[in-house]
Amino acid sequence: MNLFSLLDLNELALGMSKLSMFPLFDTAHYVVSTMALKEQPGAVDVARRSPFACWFSAMLHCFGGAVLSGLMLAQPSVAPLSNTGSVLLASVVWYLVFYCPANLVYRCSASLPVRLVLSGMKEVSRTWKVLGGVTQARKQYTDALLVMIAVGWARGAGGGLISNFEQLVRGVWKPETNELLKMSYPTKVTLVGAVLFTLQQSYRLPVKEHHLIFAYTVFLVVNKVWMMLTGSTSSPLAPLEGVLYRTFFALQPEQPSCATQVYPGTLAHLSGKNSDKGAAACATQKRTNSAAETGGKRSVKGSHTETRKDK
Amino acid sequence: MNLFSLLDLNELALGMSKLSMFPLFDTAHYVVSTMALKEQPGAVDVARRSPFACWFSAMLHCFGGAVLSGLMLAQPSVAPLSNTGSVLLASVVWYLVFYCPANLVYRCSASLPVRLVLSGMKEVSRTWKVLGGVTQARKQYTDALLVMIAVGWARGAGGGLISNFEQLVRGVWKPETNELLKMSYPTKVTLVGAVLFTLQQSYRLPVKEHHLIFAYTVFLVVNKVWMMLTGSTSSPLAPLEGVLYRTFFALQPEQPSCATQVYPGTLAHLSGKNSDKGAAACATQKRTNSAAETGGKRSVKGSHTETRKDK
Amino acid sequence: MNLFSLLDLNELALGMSKLSMFPLFDTAHYVVSTMALKEQPGAVDVARRSPFACWFSAMLHCFGGAVLSGLMLAQPSVAPLSNTGSVLLASVVWYLVFYCPANLVYRCSASLPVRLVLSGMKEVSRTWKVLGGVTQARKQYTDALLVMIAVGWARGAGGGLISNFEQLVRGVWKPETNELLKMSYPTKVTLVGAVLFTLQQSYRLPVKEHHLIFAYTVFLVVNKVWMMLTGSTSSPLAPLEGVLYRTFFALQPEQPSCATQVYPGTLAHLSGKNSDKGAAACATQKRTNSAAETGGKRSVKGSHTETRKDK
Repeated sequence: MNLFSLLDLNELALGMSKLSMFPLFDTAHYVVSTMALKEQPGAVDVARRSPFACWFSAMLHCFGGAVLSGLMLAQPSVAPLSNTGSVLLASVVWYLVFYCPANLVYRCSASLPVRLVLSGMKEVSRTWKVLGGVTQARKQYTDALLVMIAVGWARGAGGGLISNFEQLVRGVWKPETNELLKMSYPTKVTLVGAVLFTLQQSYRLPVKEHHLIFAYTVFLVVNKVWMMLTGSTSSPLAPLEGVLYRTFFALQPEQPSCATQVYPGTLAHLSGKNSDKGAAACATQKRTNSAAETGGKRSVKGSHTETRKDK
Repeated sequence: MNLFSLLDLNELALGMSKLSMFPLFDTAHYVVSTMALKEQPGAVDVARRSPFACWFSAMLHCFGGAVLSGLMLAQPSVAPLSNTGSVLLASVVWYLVFYCPANLVYRCSASLPVRLVLSGMKEVSRTWKVLGGVTQARKQYTDALLVMIAVGWARGAGGGLISNFEQLVRGVWKPETNELLKMSYPTKVTLVGAVLFTLQQSYRLPVKEHHLIFAYTVFLVVNKVWMMLTGSTSSPLAPLEGVLYRTFFALQPEQPSCATQVYPGTLAHLSGKNSDKGAAACATQKRTNSAAETGGKRSVKGSHTETRKDK
Repeated sequence: MNLFSLLDLNELALGMSKLSMFPLFDTAHYVVSTMALKEQPGAVDVARRSPFACWFSAMLHCFGGAVLSGLMLAQPSVAPLSNTGSVLLASVVWYLVFYCPANLVYRCSASLPVRLVLSGMKEVSRTWKVLGGVTQARKQYTDALLVMIAVGWARGAGGGLISNFEQLVRGVWKPETNELLKMSYPTKVTLVGAVLFTLQQSYRLPVKEHHLIFAYTVFLVVNKVWMMLTGSTSSPLAPLEGVLYRTFFALQPEQPSCATQVYPGTLAHLSGKNSDKGAAACATQKRTNSAAETGGKRSVKGSHTETRKDK
């Protein structure tokens, strides 16, 4: 990678790859995670009703990745609790963010400059987590790329991926959404990182480890700061996603909701699955289609509208 | 087992027990599982909104048994991902079933003859999975029959048993039903198979392994094909179940819903459980009963109806 | 501990610490647990519709602690099934409690004297479970106090902690409540026990093991019997809890629901979390507050009422 030697960044990257996350960057991660919890609707009420549930929820926000990757690799899910120093630090942060008199700690951390710095540091700690997950998986499954990607991703974005169950601790249940159905930017960018580090660790990407660490971290931090300053919610990955989606996953416009239709002669009606809903939708559309075929201009428009809405 | 030597089936059974599931039978399993997913209400919509959630859901349909048995035996739940060949094959099948232009693959596979063959082959792969689960459990727990049955069952019917959580990936949550509350035919027949193979593997059933494999597989396939051709939904196990149920689990008809009644002198009211509902139901029934005792013919009829409905 | 030698209890405590839980105390635990299940609304109906789901639910009531602590320490969650004797005993108890003709077993066990004895014996078995969990965790994580507390707690109060998922087996889903949000007395007292035994096992509490077993068990049994006889629901830990809560977790009265307010200049609106609800609540309160500031006596009263309600 000539760019690194050109810009004389080699030393910097090497030094950075030897950074210790504890305690500074970890603290930033805990503060940002706990503040994100506090900003969830109802969280302050839970903190008042049941400090214990609130603490448990905060720990899942802070150590969710470790818990999830532990579950995936059949390692004890209580393992994060064995690191007493980290748990104490996270608990102190949780206590200060939620219960500090006059809400001082939250107010300070929520001011723009402080939040910018903390969020940047949290993104740095993400790199280390993803890399940690990939190498952890590699110890058990050499050369199983998919396992390495999955564990690296889980370790880096665990808090988001288990958010349904984290919410359940607080008495909130939102089954209609999850991070797989509608990925947030951090989850997406962590997945990209997990893929890159997996390729690098299995010698399929001709890059040195500390160079990739440096490049990925700079990308994460710059991007996060940019998004916070401009208030933009569109990720820089969006165009790439769009191309991929249109190429591979764009379903044909005609008869989009009839894929679940029970074709005559098939045995879908025996499979014990309730396909009434799909069939009803199809019936509606067929009616619209036939109306469009026989009807005038207005009917055609109506059909088009329905198709677009359905998409 | 003289039947086998009489019919000269010994060789056939032995040959069959050496069949390899990969790739032919596994492919059939993936196709049928993915089609079952596509026939669920809302699945096509999820495929459009979030291909990743759809893929994950399809993988749970295909490898649910391995994930569940892994969790039960504290083995890595990501293990199925380490078998790159199988995952790639399942992913290709998923892609073709969901996103193939003009829905060609789904339409072909859903035609009666193709579906018959595929479903038959899937049933064959079920035998191998149940046996695999039983032997996997036996390595860790020699002679723990219940563990062997549980793991064999989980391995063979895993997709169904974890369906609540598979649905959650797609944003669907139906807590009011699950495979334990209302077992489907495949779940029941897999449980029977797990019991049989556990007895055979622990030398409690005087049958050779390849004979049992042959007999159980033939039973599964013939039965599945029969059910598909006749459109029958009643399983051949239903009479046996009925007898077992009536013998062991038929609660007494009198006061059927008052079992949760708070008997005077007991301390149920201290146990902190909300038994208002049960008590209310009892009150209703008592009223009906006393009406039946004092009333005329019409009241008696009403009481009977209610009792039957309650049952 | 001079009290023990003074009262000549040393021998008694030593003898008690060598008590075997199987089969007498275990049976009491199974009976009380299964009766608690039967007293849940809807449980008898589940027993009628699906004996299997009912059995599985009963096993989770009886062995929930072992399943949960197994999951936490990455040990097979089917392990309780390998103890065939205990499972058979629990199954027989379950069968008799739910399906005995004329509901005889339930009626007998629910009579006050029998229930007192059974509940007392169940509390004795709790001590053994907590201690078992603590020592089990200590084998894997020497000196990780938090892990030992967590596993001891999970082992002793597992049935309660996993109640959300136990209910799911029966088709009931109550996400708005769980044992962390609103701890019941058994859960609290088990947590206290887990802390005590962890401190004792790590030589931080200068007490002999059999003395602590004796004292904790006597406390549990006396307390349980007292609560059952007087019908009191307030635990003896309540005053201590109250002091702890007021000291550490009492949020400031002013602006109680505005902690989640989006302060101007912060970036909470970028974090992708929906804080509309909190903001709306704040807006409401601000309006009330300004009304109170400018308005007369009546407005002030209104504001106070709202604040109190909010708290």
